[in-house]
Amino acid sequence: MRPSKREPDEMRAVSFERGFSKHAEGSCLVRFGDTHVLCTASLEERVPPWLRNSGQGWVTAEYGMLPRSTGDRMRREASSGKQGGRTLEIQRLIGRSLRSVVDLQALGEKQITVDCDVIQADGGTRTAAITGGFIALSDCLSWMEARQMVSRDKVLKDHVAAISCGIYNGTPVLDLDYAEDSAAETDANFVMTGKGGIVEIQGTAEGEPFSEDEFAALMGLARKGITKLVDMQKMAIS
Amino acid sequence: MRPSKREPDEMRAVSFERGFSKHAEGSCLVRFGDTHVLCTASLEERVPPWLRNSGQGWVTAEYGMLPRSTGDRMRREASSGKQGGRTLEIQRLIGRSLRSVVDLQALGEKQITVDCDVIQADGGTRTAAITGGFIALSDCLSWMEARQMVSRDKVLKDHVAAISCGIYNGTPVLDLDYAEDSAAETDANFVMTGKGGIVEIQGTAEGEPFSEDEFAALMGLARKGITKLVDMQKMAIS
Amino acid sequence: MRPSKREPDEMRAVSFERGFSKHAEGSCLVRFGDTHVLCTASLEERVPPWLRNSGQGWVTAEYGMLPRSTGDRMRREASSGKQGGRTLEIQRLIGRSLRSVVDLQALGEKQITVDCDVIQADGGTRTAAITGGFIALSDCLSWMEARQMVSRDKVLKDHVAAISCGIYNGTPVLDLDYAEDSAAETDANFVMTGKGGIVEIQGTAEGEPFSEDEFAALMGLARKGITKLVDMQKMAIS
Amino acid sequence: MRPSKREPDEMRAVSFERGFSKHAEGSCLVRFGDTHVLCTASLEERVPPWLRNSGQGWVTAEYGMLPRSTGDRMRREASSGKQGGRTLEIQRLIGRSLRSVVDLQALGEKQITVDCDVIQADGGTRTAAITGGFIALSDCLSWMEARQMVSRDKVLKDHVAAISCGIYNGTPVLDLDYAEDSAAETDANFVMTGKGGIVEIQGTAEGEPFSEDEFAALMGLARKGITKLVDMQKMAIS
Amino acid sequence: MRPSKREPDEMRAVSFERGFSKHAEGSCLVRFGDTHVLCTASLEERVPPWLRNSGQGWVTAEYGMLPRSTGDRMRREASSGKQGGRTLEIQRLIGRSLRSVVDLQALGEKQITVDCDVIQADGGTRTAAITGGFIALSDCLSWMEARQMVSRDKVLKDHVAAISCGIYNGTPVLDLDYAEDSAAETDANFVMTGKGGIVEIQGTAEGEPFSEDEFAALMGLARKGITKLVDMQKMAIS
Amino acid sequence: MRPSKREPDEMRAVSFERGFSKHAEGSCLVRFGDTHVLCTASLEERVPPWLRNSGQGWVTAEYGMLPRSTGDRMRREASSGKQGGRTLEIQRLIGRSLRSVVDLQALGEKQITVDCDVIQADGGTRTAAITGGFIALSDCLSWMEARQMVSRDKVLKDHVAAISCGIYNGTPVLDLDYAEDSAAETDANFVMTGKGGIVEIQGTAEGEPFSEDEFAALMGLARKGITKLVDMQKMAIS
Repeated sequence: MRPSKREPDEMRAVSFERGFSKHAEGSCLVRFGDTHVLCTASLEERVPPWLRNSGQGWVTAEYGMLPRSTGDRMRREASSGKQGGRTLEIQRLIGRSLRSVVDLQALGEKQITVDCDVIQADGGTRTAAITGGFIALSDCLSWMEARQMVSRDKVLKDHVAAISCGIYNGTPVLDLDYAEDSAAETDANFVMTGKGGIVEIQGTAEGEPFSEDEFAALMGLARKGITKLVDMQKMAIS
Repeated sequence: MRPSKREPDEMRAVSFERGFSKHAEGSCLVRFGDTHVLCTASLEERVPPWLRNSGQGWVTAEYGMLPRSTGDRMRREASSGKQGGRTLEIQRLIGRSLRSVVDLQALGEKQITVDCDVIQADGGTRTAAITGGFIALSDCLSWMEARQMVSRDKVLKDHVAAISCGIYNGTPVLDLDYAEDSAAETDANFVMTGKGGIVEIQGTAEGEPFSEDEFAALMGLARKGITKLVDMQKMAIS
Repeated sequence: MRPSKREPDEMRAVSFERGFSKHAEGSCLVRFGDTHVLCTASLEERVPPWLRNSGQGWVTAEYGMLPRSTGDRMRREASSGKQGGRTLEIQRLIGRSLRSVVDLQALGEKQITVDCDVIQADGGTRTAAITGGFIALSDCLSWMEARQMVSRDKVLKDHVAAISCGIYNGTPVLDLDYAEDSAAETDANFVMTGKGGIVEIQGTAEGEPFSEDEFAALMGLARKGITKLVDMQKMAIS
Repeated sequence: MRPSKREPDEMRAVSFERGFSKHAEGSCLVRFGDTHVLCTASLEERVPPWLRNSGQGWVTAEYGMLPRSTGDRMRREASSGKQGGRTLEIQRLIGRSLRSVVDLQALGEKQITVDCDVIQADGGTRTAAITGGFIALSDCLSWMEARQMVSRDKVLKDHVAAISCGIYNGTPVLDLDYAEDSAAETDANFVMTGKGGIVEIQGTAEGEPFSEDEFAALMGLARKGITKLVDMQKMAIS
Repeated sequence: MRPSKREPDEMRAVSFERGFSKHAEGSCLVRFGDTHVLCTASLEERVPPWLRNSGQGWVTAEYGMLPRSTGDRMRREASSGKQGGRTLEIQRLIGRSLRSVVDLQALGEKQITVDCDVIQADGGTRTAAITGGFIALSDCLSWMEARQMVSRDKVLKDHVAAISCGIYNGTPVLDLDYAEDSAAETDANFVMTGKGGIVEIQGTAEGEPFSEDEFAALMGLARKGITKLVDMQKMAIS
Repeated sequence: MRPSKREPDEMRAVSFERGFSKHAEGSCLVRFGDTHVLCTASLEERVPPWLRNSGQGWVTAEYGMLPRSTGDRMRREASSGKQGGRTLEIQRLIGRSLRSVVDLQALGEKQITVDCDVIQADGGTRTAAITGGFIALSDCLSWMEARQMVSRDKVLKDHVAAISCGIYNGTPVLDLDYAEDSAAETDANFVMTGKGGIVEIQGTAEGEPFSEDEFAALMGLARKGITKLVDMQKMAIS
């Protein structure tokens, strides 16, 4: 029995609140249950140095947690003077995931920065960030299309979404919340496209090592969850 | 004529959304028009070194802006490696303002940290932060009272709220939004208590110096605005 | 009775020692009693990025305290790896104050950096820095005029000086020294021009909030003091 | 055809040079072809704050690359002032991997830090670091056993080793070198124990997303490779 | 002919202005010609961690240059976020030099920090700092003796002073000023005690390597200069 | 009697392992007994800003110690966020020493960075780094000569090598190892060229000051040692 009474293959309530920020070219407050992440996509003219005069664009991501998004207050990274290893790891993952469905050539020499700021955390912030970041990115591209800058459908090759799975009390379960995450024996994050291709897999044994069969069960759950998330993305955008 | 069509002495729509964060002991999303600041109050057992074994507590504040809370994306302070001068200045002001109505002795040897994170900025973020931070602080103290840790009314000696004023196109106006703020000749922030005492005054000539009479007009507007804000705080809390 | 036996409206002995540094284009060791600040104005060809090719110049300030300028040795900011919030706040104030009397267009695309380094502190370092920084700036402009680079009188539109006031033992007093500053109920800094315009007002209740009448008394004292300081600046320069 | 002419399931020459450092309690220069990593295990009395007085120990890792371990000289992280995201990500992975086979209770309240410094890089530095780091850790525990501090076999529950796989020119291949790594469509790292349990899986699509079948092929190769690596570890240690 | 018209073995005018700072336990503004360094000695109760409970004290030094102490304005180290290599090198030299004449056991478990801040630079700042730092240190010990904390003569075993020499236009000269320093072929700094013992020697060929004979000539000049400096220290203190 | 049983004028076994790194244009693992330093020379197209368009090149050095190169593990400088004073001091010394034998004009507008990373430390790391760094630099220039970029013999004007000496138990000894270094009364480092010119002298009294005669004895030993080191460099290169 999961602490939340959910079925093993049941995700939390997911919602996308588009246009949450009046300034950003695209924005979305994504909720996976009590995990709330504000994703904004910002269009910038400058690209990283290695792309200058290449005609190619870039999509990158940054990730942060508000100090009291968590059960105990965390130290503000701006005040401690650097982003921690976990932060850097997650924002690299978000960036890679979003780029996997973007045609950087079609974007042209521009940069879109997707900021994912965790307003409230209850497990799965990185998967919510990728899933909601896609909406913000898509809306930014629509904004650009409305100004004849790009064709959104040429830049975005597919959908991308992410979900976590884990083995909790011996059972493979989908979309871990914090209570499960901190007690899970195994924890895995999957990033997949709308067409079902795999973009990223990260599996970690928190306690005992896991077997190939267990991992296959997690992947099966993830596929189910991501299919649903992509459907919800489509509804949200259309 | 103000860009927003408001009367010179008319504030923007103000609202307090209490309990915005499920983790914090007290929290409030405060809105002054399009300026939205999330204020959370976190109770911590440790106090700053100079108060250890003093029996006295501390209230402090931190301030941050999400990178795309503004019209152009700002660099994330966690990534640039330090909090800028403006950030430090504002969080010192918020801390001093809140402490002005707190009996630190009555609080006992505990620390309350009020985080004020700007979700969306449209001028007046520091005044919104002080006004909403008071609500978060008050709710944190109520949370503590419910656990017999303190008496909220002994710790909180009064209300405190803040508002900006400025001279825009030659006319003194109340509660500047961003469009006015960037064009104002003079810009002033006032922090006052419920009983009408002045806690902080900060006035700056952006262009030409201002006169004593002009300053008196600004102070009059501020008094009117803060009286209203305190009334709204009282309604929000009760 | 003030610790220094001064009358409530009596400033400390003020002096300006021009040309203190042989390298700087303008320099002044300013003394407000035992508060000694070395101000140097350095002419630089480069302007901040946002002014490049604008034909307009810039005046900026930096502030620092020698580690043992104070009663207890402070940690050296260069060694702690950053400038503290108070330092950043003060140097922003000095810069704004000096720019308030400068015609940046008339200066041309050049930058003048006014460094204010506290050799010995006894309260009022920021007001001494502004008052003495003006002398260093003026001398730098004279140095430039001697080289046909600018007309000093076109660049400098007015004088600017600053003084602190406070309520000490219930009495409004002028030009607080450290003993008064640490005990004052209310502390305010005023920056005004030679013509009497107000450039900056910063008032803070250290303990109890203050009233409008008290604040008016402080402003009256400040006006008196700044009038004297401007007279002394004029004598020093002519 | 692989650039190195290796068969798809052929690893590079692997060697362990134990006792490379005269100071460390355990050390090993591990070579995966032209990838050379010096691993040292250092015994320290102090444990992280959250384990103090818990009776439990800790194993952690740090990772670095010499500036010219790579084809182009990289900036020295000590001189740039911080460890980059990739560095932090890898050292967190190494630490988790090694801890997966350690009984921290049996270690007792001590810390072992495994430093993995890349002397020469040719792809696969993190997998070499984990595989060689295990040897250094094991030798450190033997050193401790010789001094009656622990029983090595009680602390070390199993072997742990790691290998990379990828899809190169459409073919799944084992143990990517740099030439393959930079051209691979998909890149995955596997960490497994001697008994075949999975500790970590990290798979990334560099270009097109990959399928479950492709991923299964990579996992098959990895299992083969890690079985060999564990055999070589056993020979090296015994 | 030296730019300053001095004889090869002629030092610049040297003076010590004791008690320059009202706060420090010992202080001295030392002048070697146009090189002016403010040295303050601060007594602190805490010692470095490795000396706690050892009964032994410590003497350390910090060094800094005001931004416009030099011909061109230097960037403020507090603002650039770290002390440069030259600064660290010099402050380590000053600390070692002063400790060479201190009986740390006799000092007892206290720390004296000697801050050497360059107000105006014209070559030889480190030698002026050591020579003047000794005066500040000695005055700090006298301050302590007056409070029955130590016996100054037991703590201070000897005098210590420093001077630079160099080969300028082929001629060995004493006490280089900036004009000579930047053109000298060889530059050496000597630190010696009152009894003539050598504490530090640092010789650097700026262009061509130098010979043993040349070095002997420099050492002869240095001995002469330091003998005079120690005499002047004695006069200043007595 | 020296701990290592060496004669007072006997150096440790010295060896140069050229081509240790496959990537660097020049590289050498230098061993002075148990002190092992990996020196790599990296050719870069960019020069420091002050040399741009000067037609002149630059040679610089960086120095680092692996965390467990020492008896007790040191904190990794990349993780502590900055290079310590000792590191900066040593790398400045290595750079100056190598430049003393380079014709920067003949090098042309290119930069060679010599990284000296201590793999294992047992005293004398800086002298080993200079002596081995010369080999790496020479090999880098030969690599360039093979590509018609420079003439090695025009760029390299001479050999340069370094050795430490000290007074240990009252006797002047050559090439201190760690056991001697930590107990020596006086410690000196000498850098000389193949023709016998002196490039750098650094002598420090660790305890009692030393005399001119003692210093002369150290210099005599150093000359003997450096003559041998240069002979060994010549054999290694030819």
